[in-house]
Amino acid sequence: MANLILALDAMSGDKGPHIIVPAALQALASNPQLRLLLVGIPEILNPLLADQRAELRDRLQIIPAEYAIANDMKPLQAIRQSKGSSMRIALELVKSGQAQACISAGNTAVLMGLAKLLLKTIHGIERPALTTILPNQKQGKTVVLDLGANVNCNSQMLVQFAVMGSVMAEEIAHISNPRVALLNIGEEESKGLDNIREAASILKATPSINYIGYVEGNELLTGKTDVFVCDGFAGNVTLKTMEGVIRVILSLVKSSTTENKISSWLMKLIKPWLQKRITKRFGHLDPDQYNGASLLGLQGIVIKSHGAANQKAFKAAIEQAIQAVEKQIPNRIATRLNTLLPKSD
Amino acid sequence: MANLILALDAMSGDKGPHIIVPAALQALASNPQLRLLLVGIPEILNPLLADQRAELRDRLQIIPAEYAIANDMKPLQAIRQSKGSSMRIALELVKSGQAQACISAGNTAVLMGLAKLLLKTIHGIERPALTTILPNQKQGKTVVLDLGANVNCNSQMLVQFAVMGSVMAEEIAHISNPRVALLNIGEEESKGLDNIREAASILKATPSINYIGYVEGNELLTGKTDVFVCDGFAGNVTLKTMEGVIRVILSLVKSSTTENKISSWLMKLIKPWLQKRITKRFGHLDPDQYNGASLLGLQGIVIKSHGAANQKAFKAAIEQAIQAVEKQIPNRIATRLNTLLPKSD
Repeated sequence: MANLILALDAMSGDKGPHIIVPAALQALASNPQLRLLLVGIPEILNPLLADQRAELRDRLQIIPAEYAIANDMKPLQAIRQSKGSSMRIALELVKSGQAQACISAGNTAVLMGLAKLLLKTIHGIERPALTTILPNQKQGKTVVLDLGANVNCNSQMLVQFAVMGSVMAEEIAHISNPRVALLNIGEEESKGLDNIREAASILKATPSINYIGYVEGNELLTGKTDVFVCDGFAGNVTLKTMEGVIRVILSLVKSSTTENKISSWLMKLIKPWLQKRITKRFGHLDPDQYNGASLLGLQGIVIKSHGAANQKAFKAAIEQAIQAVEKQIPNRIATRLNTLLPKSD
Repeated sequence: MANLILALDAMSGDKGPHIIVPAALQALASNPQLRLLLVGIPEILNPLLADQRAELRDRLQIIPAEYAIANDMKPLQAIRQSKGSSMRIALELVKSGQAQACISAGNTAVLMGLAKLLLKTIHGIERPALTTILPNQKQGKTVVLDLGANVNCNSQMLVQFAVMGSVMAEEIAHISNPRVALLNIGEEESKGLDNIREAASILKATPSINYIGYVEGNELLTGKTDVFVCDGFAGNVTLKTMEGVIRVILSLVKSSTTENKISSWLMKLIKPWLQKRITKRFGHLDPDQYNGASLLGLQGIVIKSHGAANQKAFKAAIEQAIQAVEKQIPNRIATRLNTLLPKSD
């Protein structure tokens, strides 16, 4: 692919340019067609780029911004005052077509609000949804949305998430006729919240969606469904819980102490080997490796990175953006929605 | 403790009396002061009790019921038609004082509705909450509520859950001045749903509650808070996600295959030992071992078992009921609420 240009909000996230710049250089090194627009304060970015290989430096352009939106600002206020911020400028580069996608590790609510304001949603989509693809127990992939962009969702929004998730499952995870399920607190039809029950009856009546019913939180990683649909509150809770449990288990294994000399000796012998095995088996669930949630439903590609992302994780978010550009996800969603929406003559 | 009498809804759960009767006998064997009222259809229960040791059989009485409430019945309809059901009779035994607590593995919504109808809530509590105690990474305990009894919660209900959870943490987990946090999708004050933000401001102004702020799903097992408060939808999602992730990881470890002969030989040698270690480290997170959620806030003790509980898990629920009786949890909650509620002269 010629001329793949992404804009990075280089000031965003807990560690800002100190992890974003090295991640950018790494992404440039592994993607020869990639060009990056690094949006941020030049005085901070320039020193981080000194002594870089000319071949990489040439494909990287600094786009000046005045400041970064602080993570703890109230979203409405942050959006109102966003002119000149690195996040806004990165989004404007997508809007003007100078970049094909942008990536930010900034505040989710602000990114969501600004993206909606500047890029607009696809016709038929009320609100964008934060979407990720998780590996599952069956060696497959599960598309999960919304992960926190919308804490209150009506039934129509859940149905729109189902459509967008199906397109992601088909295009990015290569699943044909992907199964779609709604997260609920039981499998019986009478369970849960009104919006979920309403969404279920709409999805049942939508032949182009392969709706299979409700799933509970314990099915997040089992591969029972290809698309896991929920409101942003529940989605954030289930994803964060998963991350927390994996971290606790990995840390317990790593820190395991031993009770007697023989097992201590044996443990010392096999521990490095064991750790490698565990990383190999569970590493694909490591937040660093699946970092980068797509803000689906916009007329443009926006990828949200974890605020706490490290270099490896931010690079994963850049790779996600590249994939989304290659697959033209917004166009595919728009096309799919056209087949579902009532035609106006 | 003399005369500890519990009523068991012996017809409830996926496997009904076939796991409940053996669990009951096991609980009797390990608790010499315990007496059990087995509520169910005598023709089904009697054969399961044949050839039992007289010493156990003597402390077990069958209380006839006509039928079991089916798990997939609509809650309102099930409650309306509940006369003669094993669940209702078990609750009535608590109401009349013939039993000090009851345990059911039946439908949560029906148990919740019937318990509220028959036993009434404690003065100051709008709705009971399903509560469990999870082990955490710091070798401590975390009280989590609500786990699914109330899908819609206003701020007052969340505050009441905080009070009840604090009492559980003090009495059952022996934590003095327990820290209380609200589950949210971020730690900033502006995050989340209105009811959560309102509950936060009430809790901040309540000196007898040690409120520490918001936590996210990834803190469920870290021990950052002693009491983890959420609405029933989010609570169910976080608990089920935790269970699902643990099951997936344990099954991945158990089924791990090996790539070459040397590691295959080594794996065969250490696999049983490794499995024992993992069970020892993570076994305390096994749903079988913490089964039994208290329906807190009622004028009586009601324990909900997992519908899918096996014998070991149902016995754990019986042990939970014994503890709740010994600690007089409903009285302690009522006393605590008295100190919080405005006095009427």
